[in-house]
Amino acid sequence: MGGPRSPVSFGGRVVIVGFGSIAQGLVPLLFQALGVQPSQVLVVTGVPDRQGVARALGIELRVHRLTQANHAQVLRPLLRAGDFLLNLAVDVCSLDLVRLCHSCGAFYLDADNQPWPGRYENAALPPSQRSNYALREEMLAYGRDHPHAPTACITQGANPGLVNSFLKVALLAMAADLRVDVRTPENRREWAALARRLDVKVIHVAERDTQTTPQRRRRGEFVNTWSVDAFVDEGLQPAELGWGTHERHWPPDAQRHGYGCDAAILLDRPGMGTRVRSWAPLEGPYQGFLVTHAESISIADFLTVREAGQVAYRPTVHYAYHPCDDAVASIHELAGRHWRLQGRQRILREEISEGRDELGVLLMGNARGVYWYGSRLAIEQARALLPFNNATSLQVAAGILGAMVWALQNPERGVVEPDAVDHRVVMEAAMPWLGEVVGVWGDWTPLKDRSPLFPEPRDGGDPWQFVNFRVG
Amino acid sequence: MGGPRSPVSFGGRVVIVGFGSIAQGLVPLLFQALGVQPSQVLVVTGVPDRQGVARALGIELRVHRLTQANHAQVLRPLLRAGDFLLNLAVDVCSLDLVRLCHSCGAFYLDADNQPWPGRYENAALPPSQRSNYALREEMLAYGRDHPHAPTACITQGANPGLVNSFLKVALLAMAADLRVDVRTPENRREWAALARRLDVKVIHVAERDTQTTPQRRRRGEFVNTWSVDAFVDEGLQPAELGWGTHERHWPPDAQRHGYGCDAAILLDRPGMGTRVRSWAPLEGPYQGFLVTHAESISIADFLTVREAGQVAYRPTVHYAYHPCDDAVASIHELAGRHWRLQGRQRILREEISEGRDELGVLLMGNARGVYWYGSRLAIEQARALLPFNNATSLQVAAGILGAMVWALQNPERGVVEPDAVDHRVVMEAAMPWLGEVVGVWGDWTPLKDRSPLFPEPRDGGDPWQFVNFRVG
Ligand SMILES: NC(=O)c1ccc[n+]([C@@H]2O[C@H](COP(=O)([O-])OP(=O)(O)OC[C@H]3O[C@@H](n4cnc5c(N)ncnc54)[C@H](O)[C@@H]3O)[C@@H](O)[C@H]2O)c1
Ligand SMILES: NC(=O)c1ccc[n+]([C@@H]2O[C@H](COP(=O)([O-])OP(=O)(O)OC[C@H]3O[C@@H](n4cnc5c(N)ncnc54)[C@H](O)[C@@H]3O)[C@@H](O)[C@H]2O)c1
Repeated sequence: MGGPRSPVSFGGRVVIVGFGSIAQGLVPLLFQALGVQPSQVLVVTGVPDRQGVARALGIELRVHRLTQANHAQVLRPLLRAGDFLLNLAVDVCSLDLVRLCHSCGAFYLDADNQPWPGRYENAALPPSQRSNYALREEMLAYGRDHPHAPTACITQGANPGLVNSFLKVALLAMAADLRVDVRTPENRREWAALARRLDVKVIHVAERDTQTTPQRRRRGEFVNTWSVDAFVDEGLQPAELGWGTHERHWPPDAQRHGYGCDAAILLDRPGMGTRVRSWAPLEGPYQGFLVTHAESISIADFLTVREAGQVAYRPTVHYAYHPCDDAVASIHELAGRHWRLQGRQRILREEISEGRDELGVLLMGNARGVYWYGSRLAIEQARALLPFNNATSLQVAAGILGAMVWALQNPERGVVEPDAVDHRVVMEAAMPWLGEVVGVWGDWTPLKDRSPLFPEPRDGGDPWQFVNFRVG
Repeated sequence: MGGPRSPVSFGGRVVIVGFGSIAQGLVPLLFQALGVQPSQVLVVTGVPDRQGVARALGIELRVHRLTQANHAQVLRPLLRAGDFLLNLAVDVCSLDLVRLCHSCGAFYLDADNQPWPGRYENAALPPSQRSNYALREEMLAYGRDHPHAPTACITQGANPGLVNSFLKVALLAMAADLRVDVRTPENRREWAALARRLDVKVIHVAERDTQTTPQRRRRGEFVNTWSVDAFVDEGLQPAELGWGTHERHWPPDAQRHGYGCDAAILLDRPGMGTRVRSWAPLEGPYQGFLVTHAESISIADFLTVREAGQVAYRPTVHYAYHPCDDAVASIHELAGRHWRLQGRQRILREEISEGRDELGVLLMGNARGVYWYGSRLAIEQARALLPFNNATSLQVAAGILGAMVWALQNPERGVVEPDAVDHRVVMEAAMPWLGEVVGVWGDWTPLKDRSPLFPEPRDGGDPWQFVNFRVG
């Protein structure tokens, strides 16, 4: 165990909703890095502490399954002004908890902007209403109406969250390597201008998780390194991506939303059924799943350049997730079950025997090559740093920590997306918990080394067209 | 160990080309069931016997890598009239070895009709020339010119091979269950008429392999329960399927061959990149790979009814293969490598901890429901029966044994596909080695229990259309 204390400390109460893989990994980090005492932490979660983790950490845990009807009644008595509510549950509505925190004067943070249950699986809703795009527009509308409310950091984990900061570091590092003269941008407009100047056409969140265990997946079991419920939820939302200005082929299954920022589109198919080609330095070329993520939308929006009311520049942005091999097999089985979740679920932690999470942003389009910037955290490193974590949860916890530090320094910003958080604060707090953090240039393109055996839809004229990334 | 002797015995020499997972599993079966002595067996293979399996079995093994140039010179001195050549290598041309056997008066058998290396991976060839359809037409043309040559059983393993016999048993069992009055068909025409009468529109070879091991797949490793080389070879041939008369949607990537029997089509994409929905009784609904297999073509041809020179009936026939979970992960990785085979390969046998191979034919279209008939062989059962086997290799070896017995009884039939072999002889010889052999009715259709969340190409008017099986 080890790692430095952050510059801020926090004397209020931390109320954590949900006590799954992320919350369990985060609490020791709050002790270590924020100087939080066990007595400051209160967990409210849906199921009892069967593994005794809360007991081992010395924190209080109350069992309440929160609903739309009971959440205010349960949580309001627990929150005073200046306290911090962390929504780390699944199926507990972010917007309702933001509202509650504002009325209590409490800070808020989640790692996922989520609705109450029933929305994602409601086939009567048009796909746009099941999208992260819609959830974001609803949240941003609320935020616009409450600009000086207590800071509420939404979608602030690793991805979304940390990767939004990685992106800014990557842009600055590329500029430095390319000897592009630039000072650190101070606002959205300047970041977008920098991305445009660097010819960034496509951004992937390129993640390869190689964590594995000798305890094999059983049939009818979904295995993952973090929430199975949340992963399957998002995997069965429509695939979503920020849609760049360089794109010249409209995907046949794509839809615009017709409302809101218009920075992103959806594909009318589940992300878990949508494969894309990507690349990470250690993994090399791989196929990942284009699962919808908040950052695909917020980054595309953040980096949009408008000129005379027209969109002049925007990159394509999406996730290219290669989860651990057991999750790939779980997804294959889930598809065969017509996307009806397996009865057994397992989140790998203590039983992991080896592997790492290679998580970063991949910036493409510059003539010099592609640039990947991110964290490579091995399971052994994660374990040496903190208990109750695997590599994945610690990356998420580090992103949460970074945003908490920033929120405490910036207490009245209302609803804040990761793109609006100062990346320097996030990186400083998160860095000690991320293993090796590297920026690497590469010569990969989605057309490189294609097999000549079969025709594939492609645009040979521009490697950075989405049609070249998508697996047909 | 155990299992009965077959009615025939064999006094000649068994020359086995290749000594991989299938040959190693077959030899003990030949000892046990055919009364073959170790001194009768001679192996010619590309690599030395590093594991000492040949030594343990007491058989002679000579290391020769056969080529188009050297194969006759190496093999001719080893073969006398009445000997049996088993081609269980990868990349050793079936047709050339059939020719050689005919000139020596020797029996021939393979489990895969294969070319010399260089054909499947030659992108300059049109996909039809890389297909099993083309290889079959070449082989059948040779066979037509040599109708009374020594019997040469081609593509006679488990699938193709045994499953072609399963199909006949299944048709008879369906007829019996449905009280359709029928005597056992005596020829192709009668089998086709029976399939038509039973309303069989689609036939899958529906296989789910659940064998697994605690020794996890490493990155850059392809793991399977039988030949990795042969599986990847066929997986990167075009996907091929027998094309039924009930089909009313021409797949956008389909091609007819324009020569030969015309019973099958190809999709201009690799089988390992082509998923289909299928069902097996223990597994339930699953997604498998539509990998080209000889039986998809030969069964469709065998069951074609012609009236007045027109094709009046033919079922759609294809493979729906769910290999072991490690192979699914291997394929995912291989796709990410643009189909360039991983540097490490592993065939699971002694290290298998549990699982079975559920392998059968699934007959669809009859109003009563779908009918699956096949073998469920667990790893424990396979081990109890014979050494040097897993469940998969023993099913293959049983199919080889069945055809060898039939060939010895029918020594001058020239080139013979599994469909022309008497299924009663095959089943009698193979049955003791197959674990549980069952026929099961089911109410599955590829439209059953579909998720309502996303649109999928489908034809609601007829569940048995290929568009309903194919994963888009
Ligand atoms: N941004 C990121 O990088 C990132 C990464 C991982 C997870 N996440 C998000 O973090 C959250 C937590 O993930 P996890 O892996 O810890 O999930 P988990 O499935 O391991 O745990 C979920 C927890 O929520 C609790 N819960 C569920 N419904 C509840 C209810 N109605 N009331 C109270 N508690 C309830 C469960 O009891 C459980 O303790 C999820 O929203 C997930 O999407 C974000
Ligand atoms: N029909 C079926 O059900 C079925 C099932 C499994 C395998 N098969 C076929 O059986 C055959 C053997 O499969 P396997 O799993 O034993 O394969 P394997 O990869 O385990 O072994 C292949 C063997 O062939 C030898 N070999 C390769 N090239 C050679 C050459 N040029 N000269 C001499 N020997 C050479 C190798 O040294 C090795 O011993 C393959 O053709 C495969 O497609 C058919």
